[in-house]
Amino acid sequence: MSSDIIRVTVWNEFRHEKVNATVRSLYPEGIHEAIATHLRTQPALAVRTATLDEPEQGLAQEVLEGTDVLIWWGHAAHNEVQDEVVDRVQQRILNGMGLIVLHSGHYSKIFRRMMGTTCLLRWREAAERERIWVVHPSHPIAAGLPPYFELEHTEMYGEHFDIPAPDELVFISWFEGGEVFRSGCCFYRGLGRIFYFRPGHEIYPIYHDANVLRVISNAVRWAAFQGNASVKDYYGAMTEPIETIAPKDYQAEPIQHPGR
Amino acid sequence: MSSDIIRVTVWNEFRHEKVNATVRSLYPEGIHEAIATHLRTQPALAVRTATLDEPEQGLAQEVLEGTDVLIWWGHAAHNEVQDEVVDRVQQRILNGMGLIVLHSGHYSKIFRRMMGTTCLLRWREAAERERIWVVHPSHPIAAGLPPYFELEHTEMYGEHFDIPAPDELVFISWFEGGEVFRSGCCFYRGLGRIFYFRPGHEIYPIYHDANVLRVISNAVRWAAFQGNASVKDYYGAMTEPIETIAPKDYQAEPIQHPGR
Amino acid sequence: MSSDIIRVTVWNEFRHEKVNATVRSLYPEGIHEAIATHLRTQPALAVRTATLDEPEQGLAQEVLEGTDVLIWWGHAAHNEVQDEVVDRVQQRILNGMGLIVLHSGHYSKIFRRMMGTTCLLRWREAAERERIWVVHPSHPIAAGLPPYFELEHTEMYGEHFDIPAPDELVFISWFEGGEVFRSGCCFYRGLGRIFYFRPGHEIYPIYHDANVLRVISNAVRWAAFQGNASVKDYYGAMTEPIETIAPKDYQAEPIQHPGR
Amino acid sequence: MSSDIIRVTVWNEFRHEKVNATVRSLYPEGIHEAIATHLRTQPALAVRTATLDEPEQGLAQEVLEGTDVLIWWGHAAHNEVQDEVVDRVQQRILNGMGLIVLHSGHYSKIFRRMMGTTCLLRWREAAERERIWVVHPSHPIAAGLPPYFELEHTEMYGEHFDIPAPDELVFISWFEGGEVFRSGCCFYRGLGRIFYFRPGHEIYPIYHDANVLRVISNAVRWAAFQGNASVKDYYGAMTEPIETIAPKDYQAEPIQHPGR
Repeated sequence: MSSDIIRVTVWNEFRHEKVNATVRSLYPEGIHEAIATHLRTQPALAVRTATLDEPEQGLAQEVLEGTDVLIWWGHAAHNEVQDEVVDRVQQRILNGMGLIVLHSGHYSKIFRRMMGTTCLLRWREAAERERIWVVHPSHPIAAGLPPYFELEHTEMYGEHFDIPAPDELVFISWFEGGEVFRSGCCFYRGLGRIFYFRPGHEIYPIYHDANVLRVISNAVRWAAFQGNASVKDYYGAMTEPIETIAPKDYQAEPIQHPGR
Repeated sequence: MSSDIIRVTVWNEFRHEKVNATVRSLYPEGIHEAIATHLRTQPALAVRTATLDEPEQGLAQEVLEGTDVLIWWGHAAHNEVQDEVVDRVQQRILNGMGLIVLHSGHYSKIFRRMMGTTCLLRWREAAERERIWVVHPSHPIAAGLPPYFELEHTEMYGEHFDIPAPDELVFISWFEGGEVFRSGCCFYRGLGRIFYFRPGHEIYPIYHDANVLRVISNAVRWAAFQGNASVKDYYGAMTEPIETIAPKDYQAEPIQHPGR
Repeated sequence: MSSDIIRVTVWNEFRHEKVNATVRSLYPEGIHEAIATHLRTQPALAVRTATLDEPEQGLAQEVLEGTDVLIWWGHAAHNEVQDEVVDRVQQRILNGMGLIVLHSGHYSKIFRRMMGTTCLLRWREAAERERIWVVHPSHPIAAGLPPYFELEHTEMYGEHFDIPAPDELVFISWFEGGEVFRSGCCFYRGLGRIFYFRPGHEIYPIYHDANVLRVISNAVRWAAFQGNASVKDYYGAMTEPIETIAPKDYQAEPIQHPGR
Repeated sequence: MSSDIIRVTVWNEFRHEKVNATVRSLYPEGIHEAIATHLRTQPALAVRTATLDEPEQGLAQEVLEGTDVLIWWGHAAHNEVQDEVVDRVQQRILNGMGLIVLHSGHYSKIFRRMMGTTCLLRWREAAERERIWVVHPSHPIAAGLPPYFELEHTEMYGEHFDIPAPDELVFISWFEGGEVFRSGCCFYRGLGRIFYFRPGHEIYPIYHDANVLRVISNAVRWAAFQGNASVKDYYGAMTEPIETIAPKDYQAEPIQHPGR
C-alpha cells in the first residue's frame, strides 16, 4: 500500500440476483453491493465493486493494480471466468494482493488455482442452523466476536474439505444435520494472503448478518499486505547482485555441547 | 527402537474403576487392560500396563527406558502425579518416546507440560452422540477408517480448546448439543511424537469401540520413533566438534535473477 | 497400495545426458537410472523409469495408475511437458500418489501447479560447498542421517523460495557464498504427499552421494499412501447418503466452567 | 488493550553490564535501556523497563497487568528467576500478553515453559558474520527489511534448535563457520503471541543495529493482542451457559456427491 487506505474490490458473479426473485429480494443490488455497503461504513477502506458481465469480467489489469484486497463471490458461472483473468488475479495475489473467498467460491477457478487441490466438500441444502466456533481467539479475524455465533438457516458444507492444511484455522462450523467444517481458513501464498470464509448462500440473508460482516471487514484488514513497504522494491532487491562472502581466517573453537 | 517391536506401556490412573460400579462393569480390569487387550492382538507390539498406585507411580526410569510409546489415561487424580514423574516422562518424550493422551488426560500435568498452555476446554455430561470426522484422510492415524464414525453416548468436549495449533489435525468431532472439537491432534516435541485423542469417558464403553481401538493402534505405530535409528547416537553426534568451513577463494558470478 | 510393495516410477527429462559430455560421464544411463539403481537395492520397492521423449511423455494413465510414488527430475524442458500430462499427474497425486521433486524440478509445471506459487528462488553456479542440516530429527525422511551432511560442489539455491510454508520442514541448507535454503519440504495435498528435495545438479555427482540416496529412499517410503487402505473406497464412501441426526430430547446441564 | 497505545516492558537480567567493561561500554545503561530508547522513538508505544534485581524481580503482578508486550533478555542468571515469577508471566501470556524472547533467552525458564522442549541449540563464540534471510516476506515482522541483512560479528547459534515447529518462520540465519538457524520464530500460545529473535550477544553492539531494532519494534506491534477486544470478556463468555440446540424436525435430502 502506498498509504493507509486499503483499496477493496468486491467481485460478484451477479447472476442469481438477476433471475431468482428470492435472491433479488434479499440482495436487490446484488451480493456485492450488500458487502460493499457494509465496508463503506468502515474507516480507511476505499471500496468498489466488479462483476462477471462487465468488460474484462470486471478485472482488468488496472483494476487489479488498484486493488489491495479482492473479495470473491461466485457459484453458477465458475467456468465462465476466463483463464487469462485467473492468471492475472493469481499473479496479483503472488505480488501481494489479498484475496477473500466466500462460500461457493471454494470451487472457483482462482481458489483451486491457489490451493492446488480439488477444493471439493460435502453439501446439503436444508436450511440448517450453523454454529460458527472461534478456535483461534487471538486472531485478528476473530476480533470482536463472541466464542461462537449462529446462522439460523444456511446451506451445509461438510468435511472432508479438500484443501491444504490452512496456515491458520480461525473458525470451525457445526451443522444441525451432523457435519463439521473448517469455516475460516488463512493461507499465505507468495506475497499475498488468502482467507476462505464459508458462510453464505444466495437464498439466505447471510450477508446482512452483523457477525458475518464483521468477519469480512476484519478479514479485509488482515489480508492487506503487511510486509515490506513496497512489493516492487522487494522483488527489485532480489535481482541485485549479492556479495558472496569472503570469510576471515578465524580460529574457531570446536562447537560447544548443547547442554551448555 | 533397537528392533521392529514397538514397546507400549498403557498407563491408567485406575481409580474410578475401584469405586464406581458402572465403570467397573464396563472395565472390570481397568481401562488400561481394555486397551492393552486390544493392542495385544496387533502384530509387533509388546504391551504392558502401569497404574498410579504402583511403586514410583508405575513409571520408574527403567519402565520409561523400555517404553517406545506411552498411553495416558487420567482424570480425577491429575494432581497426585508427582512432579518428578512428570519431569521423567517429559525428558523421555524429548528423547524420542511417543505419548498418546486420551480424553480427560487433556488436563494431566504431562500434557499441560508439553503444550505450555492451559489445555482447558468446555464440557458437558449429557450422554450425547458424537460424530468424529476425518479431516486428514491420508494420515496414517486415519488408516482404515470411514469418512466419519459415531459414538452414541459420550461426554461432550467443546471448543475453544486451549492448545497450540496441532502440527497435524486428523479428526474434528461434532456433538449433538451444538459443539465442535479438534479431536485428533498430532504434535512433534523434541524427538518425540504426541497424539491427543478425545473420545473416552469412564462411564461409557468407549474403549470397546472398534473404531476407537483402531485409532489407538494406528496412533501407536505413528508415535513410535521414526527418525534416526539411535536417539543416543543423534545427541552424541551433536556434541562432536564440527569443522568450521574454510571456503575456497572462488570468483562467483553475481546472483541470478529469479525469473531464470 | 494393494500390497506392501511400493511401486516407484523415476521420471527424468533426460536431455542433458544426451548432449553434454560431462553429464553423460556422470550419468551414462541418465539421472533416472542412477536413482533407480539405488532404489532397486532397497527392500519392497518395485522400480521403473520413464522419460520425456517416450510416448505420452512416459506418463500414460496406466503408468500413473501403477505408480505409488513418482520421482521427478526436469530442468531445460519444463515447458515441453504437456498440460494434459500435468493434469493427469495432479489428479493422481490428489488421489493418493506420492511425488518427490528433485532440484530444478522446483520450476516444473507439476510442482508449480501443486503449490499455486511461482516457486522462484535465487541461484548461482559456482561449485559451492553445501551443508544440509537436519531440523526435524524425528522425521522419517531424516532416518539414519547424521546431524548434517555435506556436498562438496553444488549449484546454489537461495531464499527467498516462493512456496507455501511446508507442512513439515526437514532440512535447511547452508552455502559457502552466503545463502540459506529450505532444502527438504513436505506437503500434504489431497490424498497425496509431496516432498521437495533441493540437492542435485546435472554436472555434479549428486545422485551418487550416499546421503542423498538415503534421503530419496526414505522419502519414497514417507510419500507412499498411508491413509485409508483404498482411495477408491474412501471417495466412494463420500458419495453415500449420510443419515442426518435426529437428536433425542435430553435435558442438558448448562455448559461447565472451563476451570473444572 | 483498552486503547491504541501498546504498553511495552523491556526486561533484562542486567548482570553482564555491571561486571564486564566491554558490555558496559556498549550498553552503559544496560541492554534494556538500549532497546527501550529505540522503542520510545516509535509512535503509540508506552515503554518501561524492569530488571532481575528489582523487587519481585521487576515483574510484580501489577507490572504484568499493565504490560501488553514483554521483551526478555537473560543469559547468566536464568536459574535465579523464581518459579512463581515464571508462573505469573506464563499466565499473563496465556491471557493475551505478547512475549519477545531475545538471543540467549532461548534457555530462559519462561521460554522453555512455553515451548515444552529443551530449547537447546549449538553455539560458538567466534565473532562470526551472520546473514539473516527473510523467508516470509509478507510477514509484518519483516516489514521494511531488505531480502537479507548482516551482522558483522555475532555469537553463532546453530541447528538443531529443539523447539516446536514455529507457527510462522520469518528468518533463517547463515553463519560464516557453516551453520544455519531458524532465527525468527512466531508461536501462538493461549491468547498470547510469542516471537523468538536470535540476534544478540552482550559483547557485540547488536542492539544498536538499525535492522535489529526495526525487527524488535515490528515484533512489538505483531505481538500485541489483536483478537477479541477484551480478554476478560472472552473468558467470561466461555463460562456462560450455552443453549443446547433443539433441532427442528426437517427432512433432509441425502448428502450430495462432492463432484457437484
